[in-house]
Amino acid sequence: MKRVLVTGASGFVGRHALAPLAARGFEVHTAGRTACPAAIWHESDLLAPGEAERVMAEVKPSHLLHLAWDATPGSYWTSDDNLRWTATSLALLLAFQQQGGSRAVMAGTCAEYDWSHEVLSETATPLRPRLLYGTCKDALRRAAESFCAQHGVSFAWGRLFYLYGPGEKTGRLVPLVVNTLSEGRELAFSEGRLERDFLHTADAGDAFAALLDSDVSGAVNIASGETVTLRSVVERLAAALGKSNLVRFGARPEPVGEPLRLAADVTRLRGEVAWTPTRTLEAGLADVLKTEITKAKS
Amino acid sequence: MKRVLVTGASGFVGRHALAPLAARGFEVHTAGRTACPAAIWHESDLLAPGEAERVMAEVKPSHLLHLAWDATPGSYWTSDDNLRWTATSLALLLAFQQQGGSRAVMAGTCAEYDWSHEVLSETATPLRPRLLYGTCKDALRRAAESFCAQHGVSFAWGRLFYLYGPGEKTGRLVPLVVNTLSEGRELAFSEGRLERDFLHTADAGDAFAALLDSDVSGAVNIASGETVTLRSVVERLAAALGKSNLVRFGARPEPVGEPLRLAADVTRLRGEVAWTPTRTLEAGLADVLKTEITKAKS
Repeated sequence: MKRVLVTGASGFVGRHALAPLAARGFEVHTAGRTACPAAIWHESDLLAPGEAERVMAEVKPSHLLHLAWDATPGSYWTSDDNLRWTATSLALLLAFQQQGGSRAVMAGTCAEYDWSHEVLSETATPLRPRLLYGTCKDALRRAAESFCAQHGVSFAWGRLFYLYGPGEKTGRLVPLVVNTLSEGRELAFSEGRLERDFLHTADAGDAFAALLDSDVSGAVNIASGETVTLRSVVERLAAALGKSNLVRFGARPEPVGEPLRLAADVTRLRGEVAWTPTRTLEAGLADVLKTEITKAKS
Repeated sequence: MKRVLVTGASGFVGRHALAPLAARGFEVHTAGRTACPAAIWHESDLLAPGEAERVMAEVKPSHLLHLAWDATPGSYWTSDDNLRWTATSLALLLAFQQQGGSRAVMAGTCAEYDWSHEVLSETATPLRPRLLYGTCKDALRRAAESFCAQHGVSFAWGRLFYLYGPGEKTGRLVPLVVNTLSEGRELAFSEGRLERDFLHTADAGDAFAALLDSDVSGAVNIASGETVTLRSVVERLAAALGKSNLVRFGARPEPVGEPLRLAADVTRLRGEVAWTPTRTLEAGLADVLKTEITKAKS
């Protein structure tokens, strides 16, 4: 039987991984502070001393999908929790291996790459994280990959790019645009020239389920494979809300030090994991708007 | 006042750092399972959950010298304790910064480097650890350096090369030779062609004290700067014991997969830390023999 322990299961991506995992025949267990529907919940603050080991002994999973990390908009780049999650992730992995686990997948980030490159590839792009978040993820991957190789535990590392989806935290791009415009306020924006790869969180969750259920090892970019400008994202949202007149492009400068284009090479994801997203950006943004507008009305 | 917390203080290197630290005006505290002379001991199993934080709150040091790690001959290369010490080191560093610590030095290893290079330099040699030990040390350095830079904590990383000294654990080169020959047994050895940089542990401890007491940051090789063949080390020990006739060079093959020469670039250690060893290899080996022979007689 395939039994998976999912951490970060109530999070932005994790909540969308549970149904795809169940559909693939996994018995789904979650560990965290919040219960999730249709999964067996093991209440735990994984950052508390000894908790990773306790939960692992309780669940004894064959598979581990470790998504939990600090993701507070803005502060997560430099949060001290990056150190805590690195340490906890190592404890979790060690306990997983010791009780007989066979395959682990963890969430990495495009911020591990050298952003002076436009197209970020697992096999060709150097790693050069700039801030603590990317550095700790990179450090964790190095240690985890070596440990798993040594013990014959199958291991993959899914590098997430830019995400959007329902329930996104305030302060991120999509909620900023939607909230400002739906309240009838003006949106002062840059020219929106930056190009990024956006993936709906439901697709990201599904991709992690597919990656876990495969035997692909090493780093795998989890992304749509297409870049769009921030301007086009804002334009689509504004048009759908009928508020295009409230957007002021160029009212703010482009962010300093941000690379113009960050594209994901998805050769491994498409070729080896055999996964592609099911949502176009249009459909994905429409889905988010529906959720946000329903929420605003309720 | 300069107050240092030393971990691994009863270890092979740590025991030799305490007197030099005191001589440099540090109030010396140690944390570990064993008390050390002339230091204030805080009994602790640092790998136990919550202990790093508890000890740090108790000592509130301005300086941290973190040497503790698994060093069991042979098994430390792949020991699960590499993961535990990585996690504990991050917890220790976080607690150190949070209570106001200003400078931290940790022990790294020449095994972080790409050993296809003959001369290992902090600034020029790529990092490419082969086994879990070097990988975990490298991962820790990456995370710790980023965290310290972000918080304005001064940080250095002393990469140790090959060490010898009194009290060396059975299974390592010098005790193997001394024990075999002083018991009158034949020593079956390879041709001893490998060239390594050997440093006496008393010099290594003194170098760490000097590094901690400096404001040099980043990785610094801790080594003598000279390589010798293993053959010459064995020959010196055998001659000093009057047992040269018992050594059979070439009776074993050279170890497989070991690079012929690993030299340390000590430009940073000599130029920036302004430190050089006080012992020649001859004097250092004589010191070890005196200790071992005294021990054997008692």
